Amino acid sequence: MPMTIIPVKTATQAYDVRLVDHGLDQIAEHIASVWTPCRVALITDTTVGPLYAAKVVTQLTNAGYCVNVLTVPAGEASKSWTQVERLITAMSTMHLTRSDGVIALGGGVVGDLAGFVASIYLRGLSLIQVPTSLLAQVDSSVGGKTAIDLPTGKNLVGSFYQPALVLIDPQTLTTLPARSLAEGYGEIVKCAALVGGAFWALVTQINQLADLIPNAAALITASVQFKAQVVMADEKEGGQRQLLNFGHTIGHAVELLGQGRWMHGEAVAIGLVQVSRLFEAHQLTPAGTADQLAARLQAVGLPTSLPDLPVTQLLAAMQHDKKVHGNQLTWVYLTAIGRPELRAVPVLQLKDWLAPMIKD
Amino acid sequence: MPMTIIPVKTATQAYDVRLVDHGLDQIAEHIASVWTPCRVALITDTTVGPLYAAKVVTQLTNAGYCVNVLTVPAGEASKSWTQVERLITAMSTMHLTRSDGVIALGGGVVGDLAGFVASIYLRGLSLIQVPTSLLAQVDSSVGGKTAIDLPTGKNLVGSFYQPALVLIDPQTLTTLPARSLAEGYGEIVKCAALVGGAFWALVTQINQLADLIPNAAALITASVQFKAQVVMADEKEGGQRQLLNFGHTIGHAVELLGQGRWMHGEAVAIGLVQVSRLFEAHQLTPAGTADQLAARLQAVGLPTSLPDLPVTQLLAAMQHDKKVHGNQLTWVYLTAIGRPELRAVPVLQLKDWLAPMIKD
Repeated sequence: MPMTIIPVKTATQAYDVRLVDHGLDQIAEHIASVWTPCRVALITDTTVGPLYAAKVVTQLTNAGYCVNVLTVPAGEASKSWTQVERLITAMSTMHLTRSDGVIALGGGVVGDLAGFVASIYLRGLSLIQVPTSLLAQVDSSVGGKTAIDLPTGKNLVGSFYQPALVLIDPQTLTTLPARSLAEGYGEIVKCAALVGGAFWALVTQINQLADLIPNAAALITASVQFKAQVVMADEKEGGQRQLLNFGHTIGHAVELLGQGRWMHGEAVAIGLVQVSRLFEAHQLTPAGTADQLAARLQAVGLPTSLPDLPVTQLLAAMQHDKKVHGNQLTWVYLTAIGRPELRAVPVLQLKDWLAPMIKD
Repeated sequence: MPMTIIPVKTATQAYDVRLVDHGLDQIAEHIASVWTPCRVALITDTTVGPLYAAKVVTQLTNAGYCVNVLTVPAGEASKSWTQVERLITAMSTMHLTRSDGVIALGGGVVGDLAGFVASIYLRGLSLIQVPTSLLAQVDSSVGGKTAIDLPTGKNLVGSFYQPALVLIDPQTLTTLPARSLAEGYGEIVKCAALVGGAFWALVTQINQLADLIPNAAALITASVQFKAQVVMADEKEGGQRQLLNFGHTIGHAVELLGQGRWMHGEAVAIGLVQVSRLFEAHQLTPAGTADQLAARLQAVGLPTSLPDLPVTQLLAAMQHDKKVHGNQLTWVYLTAIGRPELRAVPVLQLKDWLAPMIKD
C-alpha cells in the first residue's frame, strides 16, 4: 500500500511520521521497524479501544510482543492526575522496563495523556503514537507535546517528549462522528492559513464536510509537513513554534470558559476568525482576511462567532495562558494568507487591546 | 570569596556548578547571573526551610524577585504524587509563567521533587538547585535526574531535566546531623573508588567523621567533577552513566526492604562492600577490594554488613530495579580501585549469581 513518510528530527530524537492507508491492518510491521519484541502498554480509551484494540493486540502478540491494554474513559476529563497515577501504577505492576514501550491508540486526549505517562515512567519509555482522530493526526501526535489539565487551565502540566514513530491510518476517520471530523479540520485551516500557497488552495476546495475524507491524505500530509518543519526549527516553543498558536489565545479562553461546550478545534475556529477581526480592527491584518477564514471553517459547519462570555473572565483566562511570558502575551496574526507575524502585548494593556473585539 | 566553577554541558543545557563557601550569604548575585528578576517558587522542607529560607527570600526580594516559599514535610515520603499535585497547584495559583523559575533549597528529597515539578509545570520552568546536604551536593543535584517514588520502588517516576545553575555552599554542612553527613560520604567513596588516583588518595585520609568538614570543598569538587564528566558523556544512562550505579543494585534493594531503616548513602555503603565481596567470590574483583572499601566507609561510621533480609525479597527488589533492561540486570564492579567494569546478568540467573552473597 502507498505510504507517505515525513521525517522529523529534533535535538533529542529522529523519527518518522508514516501516513499509511489501512496502516492499522499491518501495524506489527511498522512497530517492528522501530522496536524489537518487548512488553507494550497499549493505552486507549472507551471509544477507540472497542474499535481497534483487539486488531492491534492480535497482530502484536503474533509478532512476539507482550501487550497489556490500559483503557481510560473517553473525554478530556481523563487528562488528569487521577489517570496518570492509575496508568503509572498499572505500568509498574506490569514491570515495564526501559527497553519496553507505550503505544497511544486514540485521539488527542489519549495521545497527550499516554505521551506524558511514557515521558515520566522510569524517566522515559519509548513511545509510539497511533492517532485515530483527525485532530490528533494533523496536530497533537506530531511535535512531542504531552500534557494533562489542571483545574486552572488546559495542558498546564506536561513535557516535550518525542515519539519513536507516528503511524497515521486515515481509514480511522471513517468511524469518526461528523463533529470530531470537522473539529480536526479547524487545525488544518490554521496550518493552511499560516502556509498559504498550494496548501491554502487545497483548503479552498473543501466546500462541505463530505469533501474531507476523499482529501484526507493530502490535507494530513500538508499539515504534518508544516508542523514537522516548525518543530524541527524550534522544538520547545522559543520562536517559530509560537506560530502554531495562531487562533489559540482566544480559542483556549473560549474552550476553558465554555466548560465542554466547544471542542478544541471548534474553539480554535472561533479563535482564528476572532483574532483576525481583532487585528483587522488594529489595522495589522488586511480587511477581509477574517471573512476568508470564516468561509473555509463554516464550509464544514465549524463555529466562528464569539460567544457571549463575560469579558472579565475572557481576560483572566488569557492572562493565565501558557503563552504569557513575563508580563507579555504574544499574539499570532496574518499580514496576508501565508504570512504570519508575532506581536507581544503587555498584559496590563490587554483590556484596551481587546476593546474592538468586545464591542463587536 | 573563593569560588570553584565546574561547567556542565549536555545536549539540552549548559550550566555551572558553583561551589562557594558562604554562598548562601550572596545568593542573589548568583541567581541574578542566570535569571532576570521574576517570580520564584522556592521549594524547601520543614528542616531546611527554618534554617535558610528567610535569608534567601530577603536577599532575592531586595534584588527584585517575587518569592513564594513552598514547604514540604522533611523526609522521603514527600517524593509522592500528593506533594507533586500540591506544589503544582500552588505554582498555578501563583500564576508562574514560563519566564519564572523554581529554586530547590534542601537535600536530595527536595531536589528530586522540586526538579520533577519544575520539569513538568508548563512543560518546564527554569530550575536552580541549592543543595544543602552532603548527599545532594555531591550526587543528586548534579546530572539532571529528578524523581518521585512509587509504592513499588524508589525513583520510578521522573525526568531528565538539567538545572540552570547548581549553587553549593559547604557551610550548610555544619548544620547537618552526623548521620546525614556520613551518608553523603557514602556516595563520595563510590566516586573515589570509580576514579582512583588522587581522589582515592584523598579519601584514604578521612579517618573519622570530623575529617569531613575540613575536607568538604575538596571532596565535593572531586565528586562533582567526576559526575559532571560522566553526565556530559552520557546524559541519559545509555552507557558510561551506568557506572554511577556502583553499589546501587544491592543498595536500592536494601534501602527498599529496610523501609526507612537505612538512609540512601548508608544502603549504598552496604551495596558497595557487598557487591565487591560478591564479585570477589566470582573472581572478577581482586580479593581485598571489599575490605579496602569497608575500611573507608567504616571510618565515618557507615554500615557495610548485609542485613538479615529474606533472599526472595532481595531478589524481587532487584528484578524490579530500573537498571533491568529487557531481561538483564547490569552490575558495576571493580577490577581495581579506579577501574570499573559493567557485567550484565540475565534475571533468570540472578539467584545463582547471588548465591555466594547469600551463603555469607
